[in-house]
Amino acid sequence: MSLPGEFELIERYFAPLASEGSFSLRDDAALLEVPEGKELVVTQDAIAAGVHFFADDPPDTIAKKAIRVNLSDLASKGATPLTFSLALGLHSNLTEEWLVGFVDGIAEDCSKFSLSICGGDTFKVAHGPVVSITAFGLVDKGSYTSRLGASVGDELFVSGQVGLGALGLRVRKGTVNLPDQASADSFLSRYLVPEPPLKLASTISDYASASMDISDGFVGDLEKLAAASGLGFDIPFESIPLPSVLDNMPQDAMEISVALTGGDDYQFIFTVPAERVDDMLASTKALDIQLSHLATANDRPGSVEIKTADGRHIDLSNKSWRHF
Amino acid sequence: MSLPGEFELIERYFAPLASEGSFSLRDDAALLEVPEGKELVVTQDAIAAGVHFFADDPPDTIAKKAIRVNLSDLASKGATPLTFSLALGLHSNLTEEWLVGFVDGIAEDCSKFSLSICGGDTFKVAHGPVVSITAFGLVDKGSYTSRLGASVGDELFVSGQVGLGALGLRVRKGTVNLPDQASADSFLSRYLVPEPPLKLASTISDYASASMDISDGFVGDLEKLAAASGLGFDIPFESIPLPSVLDNMPQDAMEISVALTGGDDYQFIFTVPAERVDDMLASTKALDIQLSHLATANDRPGSVEIKTADGRHIDLSNKSWRHF
Repeated sequence: MSLPGEFELIERYFAPLASEGSFSLRDDAALLEVPEGKELVVTQDAIAAGVHFFADDPPDTIAKKAIRVNLSDLASKGATPLTFSLALGLHSNLTEEWLVGFVDGIAEDCSKFSLSICGGDTFKVAHGPVVSITAFGLVDKGSYTSRLGASVGDELFVSGQVGLGALGLRVRKGTVNLPDQASADSFLSRYLVPEPPLKLASTISDYASASMDISDGFVGDLEKLAAASGLGFDIPFESIPLPSVLDNMPQDAMEISVALTGGDDYQFIFTVPAERVDDMLASTKALDIQLSHLATANDRPGSVEIKTADGRHIDLSNKSWRHF
Repeated sequence: MSLPGEFELIERYFAPLASEGSFSLRDDAALLEVPEGKELVVTQDAIAAGVHFFADDPPDTIAKKAIRVNLSDLASKGATPLTFSLALGLHSNLTEEWLVGFVDGIAEDCSKFSLSICGGDTFKVAHGPVVSITAFGLVDKGSYTSRLGASVGDELFVSGQVGLGALGLRVRKGTVNLPDQASADSFLSRYLVPEPPLKLASTISDYASASMDISDGFVGDLEKLAAASGLGFDIPFESIPLPSVLDNMPQDAMEISVALTGGDDYQFIFTVPAERVDDMLASTKALDIQLSHLATANDRPGSVEIKTADGRHIDLSNKSWRHF
């Protein structure tokens, strides 16, 4: 066994990152304070070696991915992150060097996003690592944004570009050859370390009728939002912000299908009532976040169709990542 | 793949157990309401196949163990359980029959303990299952009981009997032969499904100066409480509530060492100021929970010594379960 014991591990590596109410991680539970006028938002997303990341990915990137997939959920609901709990499943042949790298990643993101750890668990797994984070955020009372609240006529937006993470995964696996190495490198780093547009949280809280992040695939997740809100979207293919490296590819190219369905985007899809769109756009001017208008919600529940300008229908048989 | 997709899985099996504020588990996060005058307590404990349970254990017992190790943490802090979030890592050769058994276990304990699910995640793992639960409970403001608050002179108690789960594990592995098959069976079932004395929560909240549950071993966890509170305990061997099947064994028998250090007890160790002991005992009369007085806290920080009536010192080289 090459790792320190659980007690030493917590004391040495995680206690310096402990939040108020966590007793420096020396107790079995923690107290969470919810300020007057706020509501607590909770989300739990786990990532596992061989599924969400490769066991030999740099350990700091694994840590950051585990944190950011959860921050992405919080911000897409309009919540400001507060603290998180970390259950870390380690297999016995991990080295202390690996652990130091992992903790570095945790510490860097705690610093970057003003976060701290309120508790958790380290445990042994037969195959790992497995990182299960439960993240807590705050919204003003009554301002939580679910995926269920869109209405017919609302305008649909997406942040950033679609498909970077999914293409990055294929770069990592060597199953895609992109004509531009710089793009390939940047997609790979996006796969390793998501960059959800956390600054959009207050815009979503103020203006969005429904919102969620894209984790399982652009089309599949749009269908989930459409089904949950009981409406549909007809999306012009040309309105989708795909990376420019795909510009000259045919619309049925494997790379485009991967971008539209592959997942790992951690960008936000959200709807805004038509009369509030101008104010919403004005409020995001200073944020330096790309926003693309995709469609106006129609009355066909759960329907998402993508059509090109010349009227062709884009058929995507595998709409989103399925876990099983 | 023999399991339904994630969406179907949640819709069919978990949504019926959803809590208020969870949008029937159809959103990416949940809202937690903390009533006026209460504080939110959070704990996260994960269990993994091959470490905390055997992959071929009955699936309902795996589910119950995952819930109860968390409820044990909450109740030992004086908290009343509220809801929990479930991250469930499944490998691809699990059957839907397994899943139905697992969900039955979740549903039974939700019913038994008036619990509901506020959210979570199902994900694929290369080796599993891995069950990571984050549980939420409530305490009256200011009444949370940590393991740090005991004072010299406080009286130390333990609930129930010590060693049942650890002996049950050895029965399961066939590494111990107990003279009484009925005891062996009951220890095994205790290993599979812990029975923490949840009814003690309000007593702990009202009377205890420090408290924690025993999960990693009686002696090791006592040392943790002693270290955290900056005091020590001299414990007469005869005061420890060991199961009667060990009565005629020598004090250095392997079975006794297993019981004192093996963990998986999910009983509570807690301290009470001397002047409040009578009231505490009176308040627990109706609960039908065995309580044993072990020691009076002394001024030797982190020291736990066990001595027999004839003055022999019980030496336990392996004081508690180490994860790594």
